[in-house]
Amino acid sequence: MKNVAILGASGYTGAELVRLIAGHSGLRIKALSADRKAGMTMADVFPHLRHLNLPALVKMDEIDFADVDLVFAALPHGLSQALVRDLPDHVKVVDLGADFRLSDPAEYEKWYGAAHVATELQQTAVYGLTEFNREAIRTARLVAGTGCNAATVQFALRPLIAGGLIDLDDIICDLKCGPTGAGRALKENMLFTERSTDVVGYAQGGKHRHLGEFDEQFSALAGRKVEIQFTPHLVPSNRGILASCYLKGDAEACHAALAEAYADEPFIVVLPFGEAPGTGHVTGSNFCHLGITADRISGRVLVTAALDNLCKGSSGQALQNANLMLGLPETEGLMMVPVFP
Amino acid sequence: MKNVAILGASGYTGAELVRLIAGHSGLRIKALSADRKAGMTMADVFPHLRHLNLPALVKMDEIDFADVDLVFAALPHGLSQALVRDLPDHVKVVDLGADFRLSDPAEYEKWYGAAHVATELQQTAVYGLTEFNREAIRTARLVAGTGCNAATVQFALRPLIAGGLIDLDDIICDLKCGPTGAGRALKENMLFTERSTDVVGYAQGGKHRHLGEFDEQFSALAGRKVEIQFTPHLVPSNRGILASCYLKGDAEACHAALAEAYADEPFIVVLPFGEAPGTGHVTGSNFCHLGITADRISGRVLVTAALDNLCKGSSGQALQNANLMLGLPETEGLMMVPVFP
Amino acid sequence: MKNVAILGASGYTGAELVRLIAGHSGLRIKALSADRKAGMTMADVFPHLRHLNLPALVKMDEIDFADVDLVFAALPHGLSQALVRDLPDHVKVVDLGADFRLSDPAEYEKWYGAAHVATELQQTAVYGLTEFNREAIRTARLVAGTGCNAATVQFALRPLIAGGLIDLDDIICDLKCGPTGAGRALKENMLFTERSTDVVGYAQGGKHRHLGEFDEQFSALAGRKVEIQFTPHLVPSNRGILASCYLKGDAEACHAALAEAYADEPFIVVLPFGEAPGTGHVTGSNFCHLGITADRISGRVLVTAALDNLCKGSSGQALQNANLMLGLPETEGLMMVPVFP
Amino acid sequence: MKNVAILGASGYTGAELVRLIAGHSGLRIKALSADRKAGMTMADVFPHLRHLNLPALVKMDEIDFADVDLVFAALPHGLSQALVRDLPDHVKVVDLGADFRLSDPAEYEKWYGAAHVATELQQTAVYGLTEFNREAIRTARLVAGTGCNAATVQFALRPLIAGGLIDLDDIICDLKCGPTGAGRALKENMLFTERSTDVVGYAQGGKHRHLGEFDEQFSALAGRKVEIQFTPHLVPSNRGILASCYLKGDAEACHAALAEAYADEPFIVVLPFGEAPGTGHVTGSNFCHLGITADRISGRVLVTAALDNLCKGSSGQALQNANLMLGLPETEGLMMVPVFP
Repeated sequence: MKNVAILGASGYTGAELVRLIAGHSGLRIKALSADRKAGMTMADVFPHLRHLNLPALVKMDEIDFADVDLVFAALPHGLSQALVRDLPDHVKVVDLGADFRLSDPAEYEKWYGAAHVATELQQTAVYGLTEFNREAIRTARLVAGTGCNAATVQFALRPLIAGGLIDLDDIICDLKCGPTGAGRALKENMLFTERSTDVVGYAQGGKHRHLGEFDEQFSALAGRKVEIQFTPHLVPSNRGILASCYLKGDAEACHAALAEAYADEPFIVVLPFGEAPGTGHVTGSNFCHLGITADRISGRVLVTAALDNLCKGSSGQALQNANLMLGLPETEGLMMVPVFP
Repeated sequence: MKNVAILGASGYTGAELVRLIAGHSGLRIKALSADRKAGMTMADVFPHLRHLNLPALVKMDEIDFADVDLVFAALPHGLSQALVRDLPDHVKVVDLGADFRLSDPAEYEKWYGAAHVATELQQTAVYGLTEFNREAIRTARLVAGTGCNAATVQFALRPLIAGGLIDLDDIICDLKCGPTGAGRALKENMLFTERSTDVVGYAQGGKHRHLGEFDEQFSALAGRKVEIQFTPHLVPSNRGILASCYLKGDAEACHAALAEAYADEPFIVVLPFGEAPGTGHVTGSNFCHLGITADRISGRVLVTAALDNLCKGSSGQALQNANLMLGLPETEGLMMVPVFP
Repeated sequence: MKNVAILGASGYTGAELVRLIAGHSGLRIKALSADRKAGMTMADVFPHLRHLNLPALVKMDEIDFADVDLVFAALPHGLSQALVRDLPDHVKVVDLGADFRLSDPAEYEKWYGAAHVATELQQTAVYGLTEFNREAIRTARLVAGTGCNAATVQFALRPLIAGGLIDLDDIICDLKCGPTGAGRALKENMLFTERSTDVVGYAQGGKHRHLGEFDEQFSALAGRKVEIQFTPHLVPSNRGILASCYLKGDAEACHAALAEAYADEPFIVVLPFGEAPGTGHVTGSNFCHLGITADRISGRVLVTAALDNLCKGSSGQALQNANLMLGLPETEGLMMVPVFP
Repeated sequence: MKNVAILGASGYTGAELVRLIAGHSGLRIKALSADRKAGMTMADVFPHLRHLNLPALVKMDEIDFADVDLVFAALPHGLSQALVRDLPDHVKVVDLGADFRLSDPAEYEKWYGAAHVATELQQTAVYGLTEFNREAIRTARLVAGTGCNAATVQFALRPLIAGGLIDLDDIICDLKCGPTGAGRALKENMLFTERSTDVVGYAQGGKHRHLGEFDEQFSALAGRKVEIQFTPHLVPSNRGILASCYLKGDAEACHAALAEAYADEPFIVVLPFGEAPGTGHVTGSNFCHLGITADRISGRVLVTAALDNLCKGSSGQALQNANLMLGLPETEGLMMVPVFP
């Protein structure tokens, strides 16, 4: 039995980690931290967890890390850097925030607007897209969870880029995202009243921070600079990202490449050629569904990817990585079936 | 390992059973039946189940029941009667429909509009409200799952009626129900377009069939005739029933009685006095949350119960009963944490 | 052409007033105020109004009231008192907040937690439930808009109380309310993520402030003290209140009394006996639908009322009153058909 | 006062026409037809219309067209052809279905799977995209309403194609559509339970029938063959289409061209450069909001269009055309403000 702590447990990804770990046979939650909500119980903050026997929320510096094997850091962007640097060496870390997603300090500063304060650590962090970094993750001390949009699109595109199957200069990704991706912060445009009957694009024109990840990952993969066009849209459904990727390439070859790449993956499901995945069919699970369709225009292919942003896009991925880092079975605690309807 | 079959697997309660059994260590799905959809795969009918290795849907009479230990009958009302009668004796049955919920043939005919065709079996069926019928369920061959509304309200009221704590002549239950309770049948008023921004009462005035269950159960419990006033309302949220029960009695005594009655129950959670449960905090789980509040008017108590109609209100209850009938741990496959948000 | 100003125009009832006045032939919007959003345009704050030629948002004290005939005060509770006191005498006021709903200063202090600062004005304010106060409203300088829940329940109950048709000691009102009723304030439990799949009661046990209105109005009407039991619930649909009123009386007599009371009312529609109204059928309109059903238990009647809280429950009512106060046709700007689906 | 009849009044576009005409000063509804629901009242079929004094639903052949000036045909695809052919000559027709959208009989047969039975009429029909066909519509006897997706995308693209501002060989349109676009037909995937938490593409790969319209219209406009890539997605919000059009061209030039093209249009609103429109801000109205953004990749422009599919995308457009055909003010009955939130 391994001991874990969750930092930032009063947010949605923190709660999702608790949900998953409750069904995990090899992990014990040793400590839960929150900042403004320190002193409260998890039952106060998340009534759906009230049947669980959980430690109360404390301030981060009240935690004794002596017998903690691994920390999940589900903190607002910018707060993990100093924190991780100051943790005892024996503690492994899965960071769910953005602090260690980019390896280039200049890129980090460009997208996040401030210099990185732990650039040495930044160099050692392993990018946490499990299916493509498994061996490095097993031995890493610090794993950087990917952005939820970044995960979705990469599942659709990586095997196609690696296989040279698509035009690298013309990749357009249109995403439909549930509001849980924005977390629990209080913003007027995130009220129920504002979101429940509205569909709208945001961060249009290439301003979304996950572009930093795309640029770094895809360019490294292709061995040349790759820039994609990426536009997220908010839709009125709590969980789920649907990424519609408009590509130039041969659709059947793309389907074959994706099917082959993911043939042995427990969580990535490639649909029969021509079928379309829906977010409703992965809700609450760690699965990602991929659909590939040929357009009527020759040489065009549409790859659609659906996953649950809070699970496979964030906390599920984090647990999958933690399993690897702790020498546990990779799928432990993660095989729950999607909740539909 | 026990073998089970699910009859009526193309409906929502059938799919929910598959979801739960996939996380169960002691059950194997041997056969799945559907009527109009026989010949299809479960992946066709329920894409969220596509990663599971499931038998294809067949007609009921194509199933070999020789090595089936237990059947879940998730059939439209009226179809289980003859079917269960004709099953081999060794097969245990959990019926999720309404056919065996009422023990009085006259009451059955009154509420369902047709004579019961298996009245002998009807007498042997055990009413499947697990928490109140555990011992009889353990040894039953046939267990009748309760109505989802009937389960919700009974969790709120049974200990109060048994304890003589409330006025039996003045019980008013106002329910808010998710559309999944109506199943997958094609009805105009169940379209997304009609339901997504509408809140409306239905079966008003005492016409809802679950009243037959309330009458029979509460009268037996009280040792006198009890009739409650019960009105369900449709609200735009897939899963969940919130029952607001307006009662006359002492609120603190009611809270104490409910807290005591459920102290050792794994799935029934009594909230601190004065707190209100929400359906969003039990979604996807087998938990039922109960809240008790005193009104400003002396002698009035409001008991609110929240559960997931497809799980604790139907398929979760069915699995809990099956566990008992098969000598398995009662909570096996049922401890998943609610999915929030 | 009469000139109006809207104070608090950056909230939902302010925006709804703008929507309605845009279709009104006799009113011109002269000024719009907001506090924190002063300096912004309405297009910034409410993009759905961007095609209208509207004055920019200013601070209240920047408004020249010289040629303003009537002010709509859509301010947070507590702010109208001093403001209205200090307005020039020629300006009529429709207050959409709670400041003048209660005529008894002690009751005001009890429900709102602070002494009233304009108690003389409080005595002169006319309670704005148009259908029951028409003549007083015509000549009033200050009309106090009702609470949205208070309006809904009063449409269901006033003719029954006035007619002595129901038991005054046993009135139970269960309300299902859209989140727009809570306004645009930033609260965690009002985020889309928290509300979109949750149904939950609030202010349970007689703590909701609209009870002050019920007590005062119903007691005055009955000529004795009347206290009702009232519980609101949040449901995931932007607009709409459905009030289910559980009463003791003769259902057909109640139906006859309501039908007669509202026979000539343009906005109150009494459905045929036994039919149930839905919030989806009044959305965006000034209509209130009333349904009356007999229960299977003799002597019980269920009266259900549906209206749009932002329109008939608030801004529509306000405009209806303003029309009367300004000598304009009562229904002007208010006959728009509900938006369904 | 002109007399109109609505054929197919039991569908959503029929109900929307009634809603709009109720606020129109120059039209009287003379007859309403429905097929399976003939004999019912509109209040039975659409309770939100119950306050209106409307003719009962009849079979089409029961209508006396002698004093009918204009017919709105809101019929399932394929039924208008013979019907319009057989109407008296004096009756003008606005067809909301697909029967007359394509002028080429071969294209019609290709997309709709059957030969057109009124090919002579087909040649005379005027394509009803009001803003681009105003003069022809004024004098037409038969106007073919556009597809709702077709309208949305054309508002975004026509001035850009006409102005030679974008690469005609690389137009990608990703649409997010509310389920009302599918009408009131009973389909399993249109149930609330299936749609309320799902986002999914459909008719992927160039199979959607509105492509016939795009091909014909854009090719005519460009003077060469133009084929766009077009993928609609279902999102859980009743009304609204958001079209995200990924184009190659100069963003500022595109913004200028759109702003100029629509400068005098009462219903088409071009947002300031860089702003994004949302469907929630046009709900219930006849407005279309257009947003134009430059991508970080040089030479890429994103044009986003939002409108209400039942109103500007269908019934609002139909009424706008009817106004022109009957010599009435074009905006009469159509200036209602969007309903938000």
